[in-house]
Formats: sequence, structure tokens, C-alpha cells
Amino acid sequence: MFRMRGRAVLDSRVQTVTTKKVDVALLGATGSVGQRYVRMLSRHPYFNLRVVVSRSSVGRRYGEAVRWMIEGRVPDEVAEMKIESINSESIKECKLVFSALPSEAALEAETRLAGEGLMVVSEASAHRMDEDVPLLIPEVNPDHLRLVELQKRRRGWEDGGAIVTTPNCTAVGLDMVLAPLLKVAPVSAIVVNTMQAVSGAGYLGVPSMSILENVIPFVKDEEEKVVRESYKILGRLEGERLVPAFLPMAVSCNRVPTLDGHMESVLVEYKDDVEVEDCVKSLATFEGEPQKLRLPTSPARPIVVRSEQDRPQPRLDRMEGTVPGMSVVVGRVRRGWGKNTVQMTLLSHNTVRGAAGGAILTAELMHAKGLF
Amino acid sequence: MFRMRGRAVLDSRVQTVTTKKVDVALLGATGSVGQRYVRMLSRHPYFNLRVVVSRSSVGRRYGEAVRWMIEGRVPDEVAEMKIESINSESIKECKLVFSALPSEAALEAETRLAGEGLMVVSEASAHRMDEDVPLLIPEVNPDHLRLVELQKRRRGWEDGGAIVTTPNCTAVGLDMVLAPLLKVAPVSAIVVNTMQAVSGAGYLGVPSMSILENVIPFVKDEEEKVVRESYKILGRLEGERLVPAFLPMAVSCNRVPTLDGHMESVLVEYKDDVEVEDCVKSLATFEGEPQKLRLPTSPARPIVVRSEQDRPQPRLDRMEGTVPGMSVVVGRVRRGWGKNTVQMTLLSHNTVRGAAGGAILTAELMHAKGLF
Amino acid sequence: MFRMRGRAVLDSRVQTVTTKKVDVALLGATGSVGQRYVRMLSRHPYFNLRVVVSRSSVGRRYGEAVRWMIEGRVPDEVAEMKIESINSESIKECKLVFSALPSEAALEAETRLAGEGLMVVSEASAHRMDEDVPLLIPEVNPDHLRLVELQKRRRGWEDGGAIVTTPNCTAVGLDMVLAPLLKVAPVSAIVVNTMQAVSGAGYLGVPSMSILENVIPFVKDEEEKVVRESYKILGRLEGERLVPAFLPMAVSCNRVPTLDGHMESVLVEYKDDVEVEDCVKSLATFEGEPQKLRLPTSPARPIVVRSEQDRPQPRLDRMEGTVPGMSVVVGRVRRGWGKNTVQMTLLSHNTVRGAAGGAILTAELMHAKGLF
Amino acid sequence: MFRMRGRAVLDSRVQTVTTKKVDVALLGATGSVGQRYVRMLSRHPYFNLRVVVSRSSVGRRYGEAVRWMIEGRVPDEVAEMKIESINSESIKECKLVFSALPSEAALEAETRLAGEGLMVVSEASAHRMDEDVPLLIPEVNPDHLRLVELQKRRRGWEDGGAIVTTPNCTAVGLDMVLAPLLKVAPVSAIVVNTMQAVSGAGYLGVPSMSILENVIPFVKDEEEKVVRESYKILGRLEGERLVPAFLPMAVSCNRVPTLDGHMESVLVEYKDDVEVEDCVKSLATFEGEPQKLRLPTSPARPIVVRSEQDRPQPRLDRMEGTVPGMSVVVGRVRRGWGKNTVQMTLLSHNTVRGAAGGAILTAELMHAKGLF
Repeated sequence: MFRMRGRAVLDSRVQTVTTKKVDVALLGATGSVGQRYVRMLSRHPYFNLRVVVSRSSVGRRYGEAVRWMIEGRVPDEVAEMKIESINSESIKECKLVFSALPSEAALEAETRLAGEGLMVVSEASAHRMDEDVPLLIPEVNPDHLRLVELQKRRRGWEDGGAIVTTPNCTAVGLDMVLAPLLKVAPVSAIVVNTMQAVSGAGYLGVPSMSILENVIPFVKDEEEKVVRESYKILGRLEGERLVPAFLPMAVSCNRVPTLDGHMESVLVEYKDDVEVEDCVKSLATFEGEPQKLRLPTSPARPIVVRSEQDRPQPRLDRMEGTVPGMSVVVGRVRRGWGKNTVQMTLLSHNTVRGAAGGAILTAELMHAKGLF
Repeated sequence: MFRMRGRAVLDSRVQTVTTKKVDVALLGATGSVGQRYVRMLSRHPYFNLRVVVSRSSVGRRYGEAVRWMIEGRVPDEVAEMKIESINSESIKECKLVFSALPSEAALEAETRLAGEGLMVVSEASAHRMDEDVPLLIPEVNPDHLRLVELQKRRRGWEDGGAIVTTPNCTAVGLDMVLAPLLKVAPVSAIVVNTMQAVSGAGYLGVPSMSILENVIPFVKDEEEKVVRESYKILGRLEGERLVPAFLPMAVSCNRVPTLDGHMESVLVEYKDDVEVEDCVKSLATFEGEPQKLRLPTSPARPIVVRSEQDRPQPRLDRMEGTVPGMSVVVGRVRRGWGKNTVQMTLLSHNTVRGAAGGAILTAELMHAKGLF
Repeated sequence: MFRMRGRAVLDSRVQTVTTKKVDVALLGATGSVGQRYVRMLSRHPYFNLRVVVSRSSVGRRYGEAVRWMIEGRVPDEVAEMKIESINSESIKECKLVFSALPSEAALEAETRLAGEGLMVVSEASAHRMDEDVPLLIPEVNPDHLRLVELQKRRRGWEDGGAIVTTPNCTAVGLDMVLAPLLKVAPVSAIVVNTMQAVSGAGYLGVPSMSILENVIPFVKDEEEKVVRESYKILGRLEGERLVPAFLPMAVSCNRVPTLDGHMESVLVEYKDDVEVEDCVKSLATFEGEPQKLRLPTSPARPIVVRSEQDRPQPRLDRMEGTVPGMSVVVGRVRRGWGKNTVQMTLLSHNTVRGAAGGAILTAELMHAKGLF
Repeated sequence: MFRMRGRAVLDSRVQTVTTKKVDVALLGATGSVGQRYVRMLSRHPYFNLRVVVSRSSVGRRYGEAVRWMIEGRVPDEVAEMKIESINSESIKECKLVFSALPSEAALEAETRLAGEGLMVVSEASAHRMDEDVPLLIPEVNPDHLRLVELQKRRRGWEDGGAIVTTPNCTAVGLDMVLAPLLKVAPVSAIVVNTMQAVSGAGYLGVPSMSILENVIPFVKDEEEKVVRESYKILGRLEGERLVPAFLPMAVSCNRVPTLDGHMESVLVEYKDDVEVEDCVKSLATFEGEPQKLRLPTSPARPIVVRSEQDRPQPRLDRMEGTVPGMSVVVGRVRRGWGKNTVQMTLLSHNTVRGAAGGAILTAELMHAKGLF
């Protein structure tokens, strides 16, 4: 009846895991992304959410303090947890920290916690561009996790702590789609136009007076981030040096009155002619380590290609996939102006695949690789 | 207080016009575009709205039959008019017909009326691509009106009737902006992504269940129309033959939950490097015959360039201009991926400049040129 | 993770049912309510959806013909079914017919099918007020099913067919809440103001041009229906005669830009003073035969009372309950102007509890009582 | 063309005023209500906006500092003004202060300025319920201005300063409608349900994540304010004592996704039977001192009664009236449950009639009565 496949798959996997769960702290637990973490970590086979941290409500019960904005209710076991401060000693009893902090707060706190021996998986932008910090999409650049060794050595973090980051929510959907498209043939230019949901800016980020019956053709710093981060994600490791992928790329970001799900209209110009069918095939068959390792939060298909003429649509398709919200949905794959250009529309759930879900999948990959 | 400049300018012009007004019939008078015509023709200095035609409510008072959806109220003089059928004899007592008919209905009716000696200005797509029919944006290709002579001769319309068409509402804003951009330097490719208002599909066109909290990445036939019509509009007359402007152009059309105002994100790739400032200047200083002739419905500036980082926005800017809704607003003019690409966002009011207002301005130009 | 409880409960019940399933036909299967039926009948323990009927797409595969507007995808087994016409012989091979037909179509078809021996459970308004037809909310007036005997006798339907109806979607939520409130003490007047979702009018019912950034203070025939049907539902059977409950009741219906979930602001004036706590208690502990019989689609609590100051909210709470969408959510229970008035806000999912879910629960109750 | 009548009427009145204009300071000038003041005071015949005060942007040009959210552009003369602080000496060079401050800020500042000899017209709630402060709707209780004398005497304000307040934006529309309804016959109870626009909470008040595709059945403190203030406004002066009008009144406040315009569904129970026509007539013919004095911001009809079955609607009707936004629109006047109850829907523009416009009209009335 109600979206069962994701959980069904998950449950069957649960039974194969017998090792002790990893204790986890969650920074920024009451925000809209924090809520997605709480939901997705509930009954997780590897991770046990033990500490919830939020600046504004230290000492209160999570269930009371949170303004729950997503489907369903606060999981019972989390509702009863007391909210801790960022300086709480109990964070140190965890091995893994998920950080959904604002960027300024993240800069100092994440470095401190990593230095104290914790593995920090962060979706804040603070450390994304540090040259010794992986910026990870598990299906796209899992090998970049090797930067963790460099990081520990350079920063003298001997207790085993490190920072791993996940990309900007708009870059995630784009780069998951570019990865298989770049395999088809050499690309000469990329043009992206986004139509982004309000949840991307956080609960207070977009006042209703701004966005009701309106479009705002601007998202602060977003266009620069998408280009810069894509270069890093799609780049390759040469030894311990990450060589960015330089691709002519032009991005226009717009905010539209949707709640969740970033739509992106993408044109890819190839250096030579390509077949649209080859692009569709490369997208539809794309998979990566998470699928091979059957990680709990990995969708059966990272990219779902739709053939209807009017899909994807944010409200109808953002929860697509065997793990709802973890698949990028691509539709309207078609010719651009000539035989060397291809156009399409993609949809990616910005607070699931683009935030909490992407970070959890990253941590699952790290777990599978024995990083903690 | 309330948007006065447009009317103030208009009123001062009225006094210079002393000739008798031209009687006008309006086909499709009760629809959402029809309502814009009724509003804009009220107290018009050249035209006298004499016959209102609508399929569904023949014989009823206009004020009763119409479901008025735009600001203000039905003008008193029109409210009292009886709605006529498309076959009414009284249409023939007019010289000029504005047609806001659906395309299938337009095909036959417009040809018949033109054959009977009436000048038909139509925004239906039926005749737009006929090679002897002008497809007009008054500021962009006023010389294409010369096709009217060819048309009359070919079709044997000796009583002086003819058909002149106005473009698809998405093409209007785009081509008004491309015209000055093409003057800066030779262009090698154009990428357009639209975010279109629901009124573009007519009153019943977009069910709320489709579009509330959603984006639909598809507008039927729109992408093809925009490309095809732009080629014609931006083409040049060689003798009596219109040579289309072939430009590599890729268009993605999306419907968003706004009421009026089509947003378009545009990337222009030039063959050589250009300065962004040169593009801004060409846009901001663009004007055409309507401005030179000081036509009543012509805005002082066909293109208004905004410098704020988050404009234009549909709800705030669609009524921009000295004649509200007749100016295209352009913002965020900036570099794309290199020195030969420029990006920007444009906004055009789809039922004013993109429909009723564009057609009225076209008829004013024809009037000034003595075509009826 | 994603709304599991409803299904979990349902699954455990499934195993206790060993009898053969009842074949079911669904009339109006492609509409927005039809889709809810398809979803809720998928893997149903009593009913086997065998025939899908829709006027517009006879002969096509359901999965192709339907414009699926709700969460998830078309269940595989239904996607492959061929759509049948209302006159198809295969309907007669079913025992039970769910009718989500428009009212005019329902009038004739439902009578014919009942006459041919089928049990028809209809949410159309056509037969609701017939004096020998039950108008049922399973928790509120299950005894009204006794009218079925009168109906068969009167109409000479000896093959066992009959018509049972479910109420208008706005009346459902209201009367589920009034039932326990009427038990607290005698009531002297009721004032209701609704804020109704667009899905209540069907897929094409509310154009986006009407409702975006707007409220429409009118829903055709709705206020009359709510009063009239409430009188019948809350009435009592005296022998075979239904005596309506006459209560002074004033209803104002409004359409607001929400997708699903009818909100109703209710004031109840009692003849004497009451305690708010008594009303809360009566609401929160309310249950009926479906709960006692543990019917598959019955929620653990028909009414969920919330204590937060700003709930219920349609988007957050419409899927409340152990069977999502089957519980009415009540909040802000508080004093009105004096000790004899109580105010509250209720939310009821209009296409689940107010349509498909309510009808399925009704059929489950009929099944439990051996009516087919 | 575009909403001309209001200004046209205003212009003709301007010419009859020959006295020197009153210098005015505006507190809270950059907020959404502040913007309405700026718009409505532009070219005002009595008042000259001389000082704009805002906490956040002292020293900057108004045109730069303001995020202009309403139709049109910042009037040129105001765009160039420097924003002053609340402690600026230049405020004292004005005679009249309009205060659109938040309530806490207003409490102290307004008292101080009145003590320094300025006439303060405030829409903050801080002083509304002070027993020596008028709470004014110019058409409803103009005589309450007599409280100003009491206030000055009591507080020892000999320089002529005083505070006059305007009501909560929801109370304004309600009490303008109740005033004529109370004249028809004695009333026994009133039930109100509101559907309020987001601008009522200020620019940042309602996050889009809260209200998109949703209704919030709660507006903080609003229900209490509406009842309390209505009692005062509809009360009568006995000597210098204001005797509140005690009416059983129950209010439910809801926030809906509209930008401007508060809708209110109202039921009035009379002690005896009334004719609906008498209520309509009393509403439609209602007028007060502003109309008799032909004050510049007074609409020709304070209440406009509509006869269509689906009006008023916020988006279509909020700018109703000869001075746009200053008329309350009433529709669907009809029977409730019996001959002694009447129901209707009203719409009042919350930032025009319910805020800036109401305050300006109040000041015009005070001016006409020689209060400064």
C-alpha cells in the first residue's frame, strides 16, 4: 500500500548484519535536514543514533523541541532523547558524527571533533574544498575516500578522526547524472538551469512573502558552488593529488514554490555526435559501489529514467526509488540543437539524496571500507 | 499612488489624435487573454471596441457572461455589450478584428474574415508559419509587414483584408531580447530554459491538482514553436521571400505555479569574445518603430534592465514599464563559462506583451503605416 | 522509516483470514478517488480487484490510461488490467461494486447493477438521500445497514443486490466528530466553516488560475449536502423508518490551495454548560464497530486528538492514523464564548476517509455482517 | 486602464486644499506595512512624509535599504531620503508620527514621542487597550477621539501630544461589518472564522515551509485581540468612560497561503428574526464621517456588497473600492440555520484598510477635527 519496497529491501538486509552498531551523534538535529537524518537513522542496521545536538534547545526532550515538518511522527526512541550542546562530553562516546550544521558553525566544531578522534561526515560547505577532504557521492567518486589518509597525516590526527564531506544539494543530482553521461563521449560544454525547492534554504530560509506565486532567479552562492564542487567530484586522484575536471559549465539557479526536490534542466554538448539512446542507456544502467555492496541506504538504481513526456515532477517523483528519495529521476532525454547535444530534466530530493540520505550512504560506504 | 505613468503618458497622446476611431471586433472575448484586450482597448485612442465574440455565451451581456479574472472590473461600456457569434453580420461593419481564438477555430474563421475584407490581427498559431503572413513583434521586425502585399495578391483578397499574426508568448520575450543581443556580435548557439505561468494555457488549461507545489517540465508543442517562430521573426526579407535566421537553439519549457509572467533563463554563446557591458548596453538602449512613432501602447523602453541580483521576479516585475506589462525585464546579465558566453534571466508578461498588448501594438503600427 | 504502521497492522490481520476473497469491480477507476481505491485495495485481505471501469479509456491498459497523481506507482497487478466499459459483462462476475462515478452517471448505473444482484457501495450523491438507502459512516451509524432489507423488499431486488452509500467528504469528518460530541450533552447549535482541498472537486475541478494565491468562498451544493446528510447520518432508526436528527446547523464552505485534507473549524453550542475535558475525552476514546471487529482498514483510533496549539495542518496531518488517512485529527479543542460552547478544528483526508477508504471500510463492515 | 478611479477622485480633492501640509514621520518605514504607508502618503494632500525611521538601516538611502515587496516602485522623493533612528532629533520637527513598529518597541517610543508633543497614530498593539487611548475605525467610532482630551490631562501632556491607535487587522474588517449589522436588531452571538494572508505576520513572519500547500489553524494572540478590541471599538462613551460592548463572540483564526487580504466567515445570531435584505441594505448603505467629510483616503463605500455566489476572493477583490484596498467587500449574505441568523463572508485588505490605510484615514479625520 504505502511505499513499502524501500523498507522491505532494507529489512531483509538487516538480518545479515550481526556486528555491534556504531554509536552516532547528530549535529543540527532539529532542522529540516536533521529531521531527515532522524527518520533515516531510525532502525538503521549499522548506526545507532545516540546523541542529538542542537544549538537552540539544549536540555529539552527532542520530541518537544523539534518542529517536525516531514511525513509521519518523531520515532519514539528519539522523541525521548535529551538535546545536547555541541560541547557535550557524550559526543565523544560516539565514533561517528553527522553534521548538518550551518557552515560557519561547522568550520570550527568539525575540525575540533575530528581532532578528538571522531569520524565526521558533514554536509556543511565549510571543508568541502579543502584539498585533503573528500567531497563524496558514493556512486560517483568512492575512490576519493583515499584522501582521508592524507588528511590524517597532514593534520596530525592520530586518533583516527577525519572529515568527509558531501556536496551541495544541487551538485549531487547534477554530478550523479554527469558521471554516466561523461562516459558516453568527451563533453565540450554543460548548461544547467535549476528550479529548486524551498527546503534547500532551511526552515526559515525562504519567507512565504517572497515565494508565493513567484520565482526568484537567484540562490546565494549556489551557482559558484555547483561549478566548483562538480569539478572536484568529477576529478580524478593522481597519487594524493586531486585533479579537477575542468568542463565549461554555466549554471542558473532559481527558487520555485515547491517544498522538496530540486529540478534541473541540463544540456550537454559533446565534442562529437552521440546517440540519445546511448545516453539513456548509460544513465539507466549506471551503478556504483553502494549497489555492489548492497548498502542499506543504496537504491537499486541510482538513476531512474522515465519515458513519459512530462516527468519528472517534484511532487510526484521526489520519493522515487527502492529507498525513497535516494534515486535521481531523469526524464525527457532528447536532442538539443544538433547531433552532438543532448537535453534532459533531472530531479533529486534535496534533503534526502542531497543531504541526510547522501551522508548516511557515505558513512555506510566508509563503514564497509573499514574506515571506522 | 497606483501605477499612473502608463496612463498619464497615454492620455497626453490621446489629445493629439483627432481622426475617427477604427471599429474593432474581438474574437474570443471572454477568455483570459480576451479580458486583457477588453482592458487595454478601453478608452483606446485609435480603436473602438464594437463587437465582442465568444462561442459559449452568444446573446448574453458581456458583463454577465465573463468570469473576470484580472485586476479591476469590466469597463462599463463593454459590460453592456451583447456577445455575438463568429458568424454575426456586425463583425463585417468593423475594419479590424483581433483574434484570441484557439488555433483550430482560428484556421477557418480568420481566413474567411480576411477574405471578406477585414484586417485580422491574430495571436492564434494557425497562420503564423504561412509564408505570406507576417509574424510580428513591432520593435523587432516591423518591415515584415510588407508580406501583407504578397498575401493579398496571392490569395486574391482585393477588398483589402489580410492576416497578420503575433508570436507564441514565450517566443515574444525571447526574441525581443535576442534582437539587440544579435547586434552585439555573431552568435553561435542559444540555450533557453523557461518557467512559465499557468495563464499561458488559458483558464482551464492547468488543473490545480497538477501544479500546486509542483513543476511540470513540459508544455505541449511549445519548444518547437519557440524555435520555429524565432527563426521566422529574426529572419530577413529578401524581396518577398522571408529568409529564416538559422541559429542553433535548444529550448526547455517548464510550467511553474505562477499566474502571469514567463521567466526565461537564457545563455548566448557568441562566436568571439564579448563584453557583458556591451550586451547590457544593447539591451537597455534597444528601441524600435513603436517608440519612434510614440504609439499609444508602446512602452518608453521595450527592455528594462535591472541590476539587482535577484530580479526579475514574476509577481513583482511583470507589470513593469510605462505601459504596464509591455516591457520585457532583463536581469542578472553575466558571464557564462567563458568570455564568449553571456547568461541572463528575462521576464515577459505572457498575456499582455505576449498576447493582447503585443497584438494591439501591432495593430497600432499597422494603423500608423496606413494598412487600414 | 516511511509510514509503516498501517501496513504492519494490516499484514498481521491478513494471516487470520483464510476465506476466499470477494471479487470486486471499481467504477470510475482512473480518477483521483479511483486511484485511492486502487492503492487501498492492493493486497486487500477480503477483496480482490478484478474489473476496472472508466468511461474514457475502455480497452486500454490501466497503467497506460491513468494519470497517476498520488504517492508511489500503480500496483503492478492493476497496471496490466484492461479498462472495461460500464456495460461490460465481466462486472456481473463480481459480487461487490465500488462506485466512484459522477453523480449523474451513478443514478442509472448503480440502480441497474444492484437490480442485477450486485452489492453496490457508492460515494456518488445520487442515492444518498433515498429513504431506503443507508448513508454510512461505519463508526457512527452501522445499524443503518438494516435499511438494506427494506430496500431489497421495496425494489423487488431478490437476487441480493443493494445500494449502500457513503457521505459527502466534508460531512464525513464533521459527523465523526459530532457523534462523540453529541454524547456529552444535548446540543443546541453547530457552526461549521470549512477550508477544503482541491482534490475534493476531482482532477479537473479547480483550475489553477482560480485558486493559486486565493480562497474561493463557495463549493457548489456543498453546504446543503453537509446539513442534509448529517441529519440523516446522525438520525436514528425507528423500525424501518429513519428519523433525522434535526440540529440547528450553519455551514460555510471554502476552497483553499491545498491538495488533500479538508479542514473544518467547528463551534458546538450545548444547551447547558460542559467541560472541555469531557469533550476531549469523548473524542479521544471514540470507537465503533470497525475497531471492535478489527476490520482491515479501520484505524486504531477513528479520532486522534492533538494537543499542540497549531495542529491539525493538512499537509502534515492528513495521513495520520494507523491506517494512513483513515483517522480524523482534532485539535485546538477549547471554549467558545461561554461555558456552554466548545470550539475545535478538525482535519479529514477527503479522498481516503472521505471517499475510497470510507467506502472500503463500509464494505468490510458489510462483509463482516454477512451482507454478501 | 489600471485602477484609476481612486487617484482620480483623490486628485480632484487635492485642489480644494490650500493649507500648508503637515510634516510626518514614519516609524518602521521599511517593513511590508511601512511600504504601504510610503505608497499611500506619496503626493498626499494633507501630509508630507519628511522622516523615515527604521531600526536596521540607519543612515542608508531608503531606496537602497528597502526590500520593496508591493506593486510599482519606491516613489522617487522617498527613495532619496536617509533613514533615521528612532532617537533622531528630526522626528521632533514633525507634528504627526505614524507608527508601524513591533509592539514591544512601540510601548516606550510612542509614549516618549507623545510626551514630547507629537501626535502619534499607531497600529501597534502596545497602547490599544489603554483606557484613555482611542482605538479607532473612522467610520465606526469617530467619537472615541474625545478620549484624547482625557489622555492629555491624565498624562500631563501639555504640549499637545497624544496617542491614537488603530485596531488589529482582523478586527478592522469584522467591526466595520458588525457596526451596520448591529443597527439592524439586537445581536445575541457572533461566530467568526478567519482565513488570513501571510503579510499579516510581516515579511519574515510565515516561512514558506510552513504554509505552502497548507493551512495553519492558529495565529498567535489573534483570537483574543479580535474579541477584546471589538468590545472596545463597538463600545460607547459615557462621559469620559468607554463602556465596552459585550457580545458573545467566538473567533477561530487560520493562516492560508494568500499574500494579502483577510477573509472572514461570519455568522450573526440575532435575538429575533431578521430579513436578510435588511442586513444587506444596512451593509451596502453604511457610511461614516470620512465619507461625509470626503477625506482623501476614504472610499466612496466603506462596504461593497457583492451578489455573485463565489465572491469575495482575496486575489480578485482585495483592491476593491474607489480608494483601492480601503473598502471591505462582503458577499454571500444569507440565512444561517433559522430566521434569526445571518451568514456572510467578508474580505478586508490587511495592510491597507487593516494597517497603513486605516491609520492614514484616522489621521485625516483627526486633521479635519483640528486635533493637530
